[in-house]
Amino acid sequence: MLSWVDGRPQQAVALTDRGLAYGDGLFETIGVKHGRPQLLERHLARLADGCQRLTIPVDLNLVRTELLAFAAEVGEGVAKLILTRGDGLRGYAAPITAVPRRILQAAAAPAYPVNNAEHGVRLFPCATRLAEQPLLAGLKHLNRLEQVLARSEWQDSDHAEGLMLDISGRVIEGVYSNLFIVRDGVLVTPELSRSGVAGVMRAELLAQAESLGIAVSVQALSYEQLLAADEVFLCNSLYGVWPVCALQAHSWPVGPLTRKLQRIARDLLDC
Amino acid sequence: MLSWVDGRPQQAVALTDRGLAYGDGLFETIGVKHGRPQLLERHLARLADGCQRLTIPVDLNLVRTELLAFAAEVGEGVAKLILTRGDGLRGYAAPITAVPRRILQAAAAPAYPVNNAEHGVRLFPCATRLAEQPLLAGLKHLNRLEQVLARSEWQDSDHAEGLMLDISGRVIEGVYSNLFIVRDGVLVTPELSRSGVAGVMRAELLAQAESLGIAVSVQALSYEQLLAADEVFLCNSLYGVWPVCALQAHSWPVGPLTRKLQRIARDLLDC
Repeated sequence: MLSWVDGRPQQAVALTDRGLAYGDGLFETIGVKHGRPQLLERHLARLADGCQRLTIPVDLNLVRTELLAFAAEVGEGVAKLILTRGDGLRGYAAPITAVPRRILQAAAAPAYPVNNAEHGVRLFPCATRLAEQPLLAGLKHLNRLEQVLARSEWQDSDHAEGLMLDISGRVIEGVYSNLFIVRDGVLVTPELSRSGVAGVMRAELLAQAESLGIAVSVQALSYEQLLAADEVFLCNSLYGVWPVCALQAHSWPVGPLTRKLQRIARDLLDC
Repeated sequence: MLSWVDGRPQQAVALTDRGLAYGDGLFETIGVKHGRPQLLERHLARLADGCQRLTIPVDLNLVRTELLAFAAEVGEGVAKLILTRGDGLRGYAAPITAVPRRILQAAAAPAYPVNNAEHGVRLFPCATRLAEQPLLAGLKHLNRLEQVLARSEWQDSDHAEGLMLDISGRVIEGVYSNLFIVRDGVLVTPELSRSGVAGVMRAELLAQAESLGIAVSVQALSYEQLLAADEVFLCNSLYGVWPVCALQAHSWPVGPLTRKLQRIARDLLDC
């Protein structure tokens, strides 16, 4: 599979990379269609935010240029970008002048069942809880053992995604998706100041909803509020929107606002 | 610098490795003296525990054999072992039959100032708090962004280590050390069921203290209890024991139990 390291075709990374040693870096998983990266500016904006918070010096124009060239080679599929702090010495202290490393890996577009988008998905109730770490919350960083543990909780194909709560019991997200509910016409998604990944499609849907005059609330969400929702859906930047139809014995209909935002997401990803 | 991947000299690792993608793995930093890994069985025991908790299948005998051979080549210094879950597909789900990858890297023995052991170290009060995640607590896993952030808080050489509290304000550990206090003749170290790394030297000192009839308590430790301690010291498997002489305006004397355990640690690492 096609992969580049710092702009050149390469299949391996130096053992001295701090991404391997400490998960000291960030990543973006970007859909590629007709040779173009989807939602590119939103991905870059999140990456820039992450780099700022982790003080990783990044040349965003270089990343953009490289992503465009890489996507042109990929054609159709997925481009995963990993940006690490680069090589390190022994120990946690970062080099005074870190030289970040850019890793690009191509993959085929995931073959999700059409049913997921049409009739909705069942959520697996993950026992793995998200720790609360305000310094890392929202970032798509490389410390992802919680997601690995959560995803290992189910193997059946009846559950397309898992629901993750935080240590305090708040509803946060799916293992690889963000979560929204609709209640009394208001679009609600969990605030992610203590845990979770602030997804690119989540940001896009929030912006689109506001521009459409849909009432939006980003807030703490309890499990009871989730169960009492009129509609529930998931999103990410690869599949767009999936209605959630069931969580254990509980079920939800596929609602009109979910369908509306699903069409918007589809249009965004189709262009 | 000497490095092996799966038993063969190699300087790079496949981009498909889950250690890079998600920090999906564990590590051990092992002192090497006279061509032999120090505290080998304790390092292997912790690795085995970590593999069991993360369900990474590991051939411990192979790891032991390889570490012995690697240490013989290194002679004097440090051998860092990274054990990852191996290659993965796209996504958090682990392959059904994971083939873990063994990475060994040599480094020179760290040149710590002699003063640290003799007169004690100043602790930097880190603002970075440790998140509480019982599923990962105690493990020396590859998700180490909290330590990277904490270590970035000071650059001066006046502070040899930083003090880390958890989100709830409990005293947990140093950035790369475990912490003990002595109070009324009792040796106390924080319990690590919600955060922290259960160090190899910590385990060794706890065992030695118990065999010497020293009263030992592994418990939650408040900041107030730390300040009220008679003695405070740090430990890890490379430097042994460092007395802590100061934290901001607070200071502690270097006490007799600290010196006793320091000698024991020195003997363990000298052999």
